Amino acid sequence: MRFLDLPHHDGSPLYVSTQAPEPGAPVTLWLRAPRAAGVTAAHVRAVHDGEPRYARAAPDPARTGRPVGGYGAGDDWWRAEVTPVNPVTRYRFLLETTGGQAWLTAAGLFAHDVPDSGDFRLVCHEPPPAWMAGSIVYQIFPDRFARSGPMPDPAPAWALPRDWDRDPVIPSGPGTAEQFYGGDLDGVVRHLGHIESLGADTVYLTPIFPARSNHRYDAADFDRVDPLLGGDAALRRLADALHGRGMRLLGDITANHTGDAHAWFTAAVSDVRAPERDMYYFDPDTGDYESWWGFKSLPKLNWGSPLVRDRMRQVLTRWTGPFDGWRVDVANMTGRFGADDHNHEAAALLRRALPPGAAFVAEHNHDASSDLDRDGWHGTMNYGGFTRPVWSWLRAGTLGLEHFLGVPGGVPRRDGLAVLATLRSFASHLSWRSLVHSWQLLDSHDTPRIRTVTGSRERHLVALGLQATLPGTPMVFAGSEFGLTGVNGEHSRTPMPWNRPADRDPATLAAYRDLLGLRRREPALRHGGLRWLHADADCLVFARETYEETLLVCARRAPGAPLALPAHADLVHNGGDTNDGTGDGPSLSVWRVIGR
Amino acid sequence: MRFLDLPHHDGSPLYVSTQAPEPGAPVTLWLRAPRAAGVTAAHVRAVHDGEPRYARAAPDPARTGRPVGGYGAGDDWWRAEVTPVNPVTRYRFLLETTGGQAWLTAAGLFAHDVPDSGDFRLVCHEPPPAWMAGSIVYQIFPDRFARSGPMPDPAPAWALPRDWDRDPVIPSGPGTAEQFYGGDLDGVVRHLGHIESLGADTVYLTPIFPARSNHRYDAADFDRVDPLLGGDAALRRLADALHGRGMRLLGDITANHTGDAHAWFTAAVSDVRAPERDMYYFDPDTGDYESWWGFKSLPKLNWGSPLVRDRMRQVLTRWTGPFDGWRVDVANMTGRFGADDHNHEAAALLRRALPPGAAFVAEHNHDASSDLDRDGWHGTMNYGGFTRPVWSWLRAGTLGLEHFLGVPGGVPRRDGLAVLATLRSFASHLSWRSLVHSWQLLDSHDTPRIRTVTGSRERHLVALGLQATLPGTPMVFAGSEFGLTGVNGEHSRTPMPWNRPADRDPATLAAYRDLLGLRRREPALRHGGLRWLHADADCLVFARETYEETLLVCARRAPGAPLALPAHADLVHNGGDTNDGTGDGPSLSVWRVIGR
Repeated sequence: MRFLDLPHHDGSPLYVSTQAPEPGAPVTLWLRAPRAAGVTAAHVRAVHDGEPRYARAAPDPARTGRPVGGYGAGDDWWRAEVTPVNPVTRYRFLLETTGGQAWLTAAGLFAHDVPDSGDFRLVCHEPPPAWMAGSIVYQIFPDRFARSGPMPDPAPAWALPRDWDRDPVIPSGPGTAEQFYGGDLDGVVRHLGHIESLGADTVYLTPIFPARSNHRYDAADFDRVDPLLGGDAALRRLADALHGRGMRLLGDITANHTGDAHAWFTAAVSDVRAPERDMYYFDPDTGDYESWWGFKSLPKLNWGSPLVRDRMRQVLTRWTGPFDGWRVDVANMTGRFGADDHNHEAAALLRRALPPGAAFVAEHNHDASSDLDRDGWHGTMNYGGFTRPVWSWLRAGTLGLEHFLGVPGGVPRRDGLAVLATLRSFASHLSWRSLVHSWQLLDSHDTPRIRTVTGSRERHLVALGLQATLPGTPMVFAGSEFGLTGVNGEHSRTPMPWNRPADRDPATLAAYRDLLGLRRREPALRHGGLRWLHADADCLVFARETYEETLLVCARRAPGAPLALPAHADLVHNGGDTNDGTGDGPSLSVWRVIGR
Repeated sequence: MRFLDLPHHDGSPLYVSTQAPEPGAPVTLWLRAPRAAGVTAAHVRAVHDGEPRYARAAPDPARTGRPVGGYGAGDDWWRAEVTPVNPVTRYRFLLETTGGQAWLTAAGLFAHDVPDSGDFRLVCHEPPPAWMAGSIVYQIFPDRFARSGPMPDPAPAWALPRDWDRDPVIPSGPGTAEQFYGGDLDGVVRHLGHIESLGADTVYLTPIFPARSNHRYDAADFDRVDPLLGGDAALRRLADALHGRGMRLLGDITANHTGDAHAWFTAAVSDVRAPERDMYYFDPDTGDYESWWGFKSLPKLNWGSPLVRDRMRQVLTRWTGPFDGWRVDVANMTGRFGADDHNHEAAALLRRALPPGAAFVAEHNHDASSDLDRDGWHGTMNYGGFTRPVWSWLRAGTLGLEHFLGVPGGVPRRDGLAVLATLRSFASHLSWRSLVHSWQLLDSHDTPRIRTVTGSRERHLVALGLQATLPGTPMVFAGSEFGLTGVNGEHSRTPMPWNRPADRDPATLAAYRDLLGLRRREPALRHGGLRWLHADADCLVFARETYEETLLVCARRAPGAPLALPAHADLVHNGGDTNDGTGDGPSLSVWRVIGR
């Protein structure tokens, strides 16, 4: 594959004049065309009220022949103007080349006609807050992060108290939801220095509302913080401490269901005439009700009900102040039931209820593209388009996982070309904006730990390097920076080994600080475009490009052929490779390309 | 490419137990797995309220080892049940094979993860009427098909009268919309025998309402038939004559705009307080109004207006009786304007207004997939997924076309693999149902003639053969059966050469009768699945399969290697090749595979 010879556009700021386009305002699009691509003319096709319109691109003398990003001074640049008229404008390039006509879409370069699903997108919906794209998120499962004092005594009736450092987590079967380690919010406050030292600037807490489980996804109340976590005052202390450091706090909201102990549900279930009755899906004949995956403790909300809309909107606005935004649990199912599909309405209505600057990220476990770029969720937890391909490239040779978020057959082992195909095809179904506002995660409270998946520190750190250098917001699950392990979501909810230094791998921790720190320092890693340069079974090479600079990233899962580096390149991160790219592996190294 | 070794499913009746699934009713899905594919286990992933669910497939002893369709007695068959709960259920197969895990979607077999856009679809919306999938459509542009008497005298004020057999069509510039040949509906009645002899059973008339142009897309009135065409009585005579032969009649409706002479618009433009004012997009400041592509004679309808919805619904129901359904002009733009997108609502509302048995087909000039499977249009005019790839494979070596329906750069010349990639990828974005109810056309009143595009009778007949044998409803533009030519849409609106035998190519006419007749006789061509078997630059081979039989089709644009035929195959159409598939070309031949 000779990616360096391919014409390129990726929707990033280097190639599009604004990431916040508005209807009626012209947007400039650029195309980079290496001479070897033989581009003789270019057009932009943009859809306008359902109809494609073509604009001829012109050579851009301001860029042609210059080492844009320090790279490719021999490249031609073309520019064209497009004026979006609709909330989302799909566009693509039609290239006339010495080798014939070709289409360039976000899915790649094609010498045959392709459908519109991979087209680039200009999105005129209100843009996500500016801070999000540059952020690094640290995920905390409150029961397991840190305890500020002794265990609550007595423990709540539902709980099975466990010793923080001596009792291993029950990975499955009875007790998984009831095992209780007693972490609390003041415990989080004590470790903000650690979180900040990683480069993270945003803490995302899984649910903190009162419930009858350790995970609290069965909320009994959305109006107060669980006293077991320290109550409202502790949340305020945590938020103040974070905001005092210039950091942010995100909550976790179940918009798909409540717990069956929630007052809305108890009102609904106890009186068929209660206004709350319409908030859920009750069978008019049997009185039975719909619930998440048939778990009767999680009754499903009916987003056709005006009361659900009002009350959920009130929940989100009520917490403005401590929370700077939300992760939305099972966002993919929210508002969907049989013939009803209120998902996009619910997402838009809730997002509009949030104050300016709030983040709104959807959990989704397969392809979220049909729910993004819809004026609702700002991004998704990118399990399908990042976690799974990275796992399948870097997984251990033997790995006993039974499924990946419900996908049977475990996690296949795949080569770099297959992984690149997945990364590209999933990304091509999103706007650049939705891609960079999605969370790139290696693991979470719902998955095995990346250390277990990769089976080695070396491959774990290659995965971390991809997380730190690819477009999208890194989300780190607390504990993975110590190299903790876990065979499934429950098992990964390890109490943090603050008191067990032997359980913390200092080399892994140092690498998190290095690589996430690199991302924080380097604008190209946060905001640069993405150009793939090479892929083979064991090696992926790509450039992150701004107008000013280019960082070159080489990820290897095994030793391989040396990398042909540009004439002027400075090593800025040495993850096992040497300065001249000789091909050590597993490794991930980053170079800065120096313009002439 | 060894397609015969690939696992296969295509959404057709051979692989799905019903084409009219209903929520809550189980549907059986089958998978064909040739032994060489090494499938050891299979799962179906179906999305249910936004969440993927997996169902394990089981070997099907009723099919395994049998020559289903007369073919592949060595193949394994798997079956699984899926119960759709939503209006549209996307599904795909997860295969465990001796070569690793793979996904099978409508887009193909993938050894890497792919987004959902190519997934198969079960569609629970009301199915299209049963007659549609088996039909063959014949398109008539009334001014140019046949005149039943002398030219109207005087001609209408807007018209430029032309002599039917002596005056050539003006292809562009002044006079194109005004040149008037005087064809009428009683003229059509006289030639129904000809239409029926081709195998067509459905006549589609471009607009017949009063207007101020020869194409009548600028309707001045939707309530009566243009007296120049014979008025309402002539339409009744035509409909009665067609229905008497068991044939059907489709109209052409502009739902995106009216003409500026329409009473709705004249009311709206003459009084800012008229209720009709809201039916269009008037600028409140300037009084200017939105129109189709800026043509002020075609003011755009505002589908946000209840009056538009009511009146357009009335228009369609008013013509129940003569018309058995509609083609909808610029359906891709209908209801779309800036932030407004009423397209799917408009389509659903109008379709529901139609009586049972009515057809509703959308004009669309690129990728219609996001507007289909939405409870509105039954199918599309498949220019993007059929016409353009067929043209690009079979086009003449030199061809002076400037654009293809607005796409700059003419029509590229592409090889069979590129054409197959386009046919597959466009088809993969539709349900099987929407694919077979879409119109596969070689040309129309809006394009050059296929004879001009191919530049030869031989390649023209290969294109015809693909139209007659691939899934989808053939739509023949009147005159192409005589081998007429035309360099653009206007130029192709040739007055039919009823009086000019020298302008009719008898070999072409015979081939239309043969190939469309074959389609009418062979259930596998109308309702069978589609399995691609081979593609190279100059040759495409595929099977159309029902449980009972398989037809094998080999299309060549040039001579090539002999075809490896199954042991028992009977030639049922000899289009230039010989009985043993020796590789003559251009040719299109069809064999029936005989079960043992």
